[in-house]
Amino acid sequence: MPPATFKAIKADLLRRIQHGEWPPGGRLPDEVDLAGAYGVARTTVGRAMRELVADGLIERRRKAGTRVRAAPLRSARFQIPLVRDEITTLGAAYSYRLLASDIADPPAGVAAALRIGPAARLRHLLCLHFADGAPYQLEDRWINLAAAPDAAEADFSAQGPNEWLVSKIPFTSAEIGFSAVAASAAQSAHLACEPGTALFCIDRRTEWQRQPVTLVRLIYREGHRLTTRY
Amino acid sequence: MPPATFKAIKADLLRRIQHGEWPPGGRLPDEVDLAGAYGVARTTVGRAMRELVADGLIERRRKAGTRVRAAPLRSARFQIPLVRDEITTLGAAYSYRLLASDIADPPAGVAAALRIGPAARLRHLLCLHFADGAPYQLEDRWINLAAAPDAAEADFSAQGPNEWLVSKIPFTSAEIGFSAVAASAAQSAHLACEPGTALFCIDRRTEWQRQPVTLVRLIYREGHRLTTRY
Repeated sequence: MPPATFKAIKADLLRRIQHGEWPPGGRLPDEVDLAGAYGVARTTVGRAMRELVADGLIERRRKAGTRVRAAPLRSARFQIPLVRDEITTLGAAYSYRLLASDIADPPAGVAAALRIGPAARLRHLLCLHFADGAPYQLEDRWINLAAAPDAAEADFSAQGPNEWLVSKIPFTSAEIGFSAVAASAAQSAHLACEPGTALFCIDRRTEWQRQPVTLVRLIYREGHRLTTRY
Repeated sequence: MPPATFKAIKADLLRRIQHGEWPPGGRLPDEVDLAGAYGVARTTVGRAMRELVADGLIERRRKAGTRVRAAPLRSARFQIPLVRDEITTLGAAYSYRLLASDIADPPAGVAAALRIGPAARLRHLLCLHFADGAPYQLEDRWINLAAAPDAAEADFSAQGPNEWLVSKIPFTSAEIGFSAVAASAAQSAHLACEPGTALFCIDRRTEWQRQPVTLVRLIYREGHRLTTRY
């Protein structure tokens, strides 16, 4: 039998990793020992190992030796695009309608969520974003006029507040929450679904220099999925 | 009037940024010009600017000058912890029950979602995770036995397949989707809610070396929110 090629050794190491001989985080034998066991030159094992490193399956750490990479961080990064971009990326035409706009003190729930006093002056906007003319996302937004004074007079009838805020108001931190909500009567009318329909929902609160800027609830049409790869 | 301090200049620059004089991505005047306008030494303006850079509000780019930082990347990183850790982090006691387990060919929908042939052998598991004895997460999982052969014989009656997979099977990529689902009759019975309740749902598919490993749907109890900061 000819000595194994680096490809055969790489395949065998992969098989052994997959069968749990060295679990995620586990240490592989030294190259010299593997070379002896496979009956090949150390450089042959070295080449197989370098490819496994390049493939992201094992990693070399000074002193800690060569280990099977632990599962990639169990975290995922989600892009939160502007809804206009989200819709055009789907190949659909974007359109927008401002449903309601006023300036008001925050209801208790909004004040608590924004972490702002009850006497704060806020601009409240209800907006609907359409994909090819069908309702896609309902946006219920509060803007703190102390943080974004120009929002008091801004005209949101043609452009949504999200785009306006991105172009005008920097922010330094944000909190985001994903959840499922049952459509209220009003929400279901706007989003053309039955009341009680399970809808995917994103809540976001942004701050600028520790001052609350905006609180928004984005409710998506029935069946929406937010996806990512890592 | 004494010349302005760097703190007063920093505060004034902040105010002007906040009022949209220089929008996100916009260029600030040169230090020399600002120093002239404020009637202070260039070093005073420089110190204010350095603090704004350190605060992450403006950035200096070679040739492009000093600019208001565009809004932070509109993306958010979510931790996907093991459900055991998720529950204990809430201060609740974790417990687990295996509801069903068998080995089967995939139904058409599962085969399509896993992107695997209809003749593949899969381990199918239905598990329930509890927080302080109350249903917290329903886990519906398929494991590709070609990718994880030991899963055929593994005993999941005391430990969930998630923990087993993390300890045994590396993975190289994953797709994740977040959505809202209406509880089916069976799901609502397991999760102790009314049928049709809006429930938050995570779907995940992982691969190892381009081979599908596992497909899982995690359905959370009513009212669950997945949150993050950035």
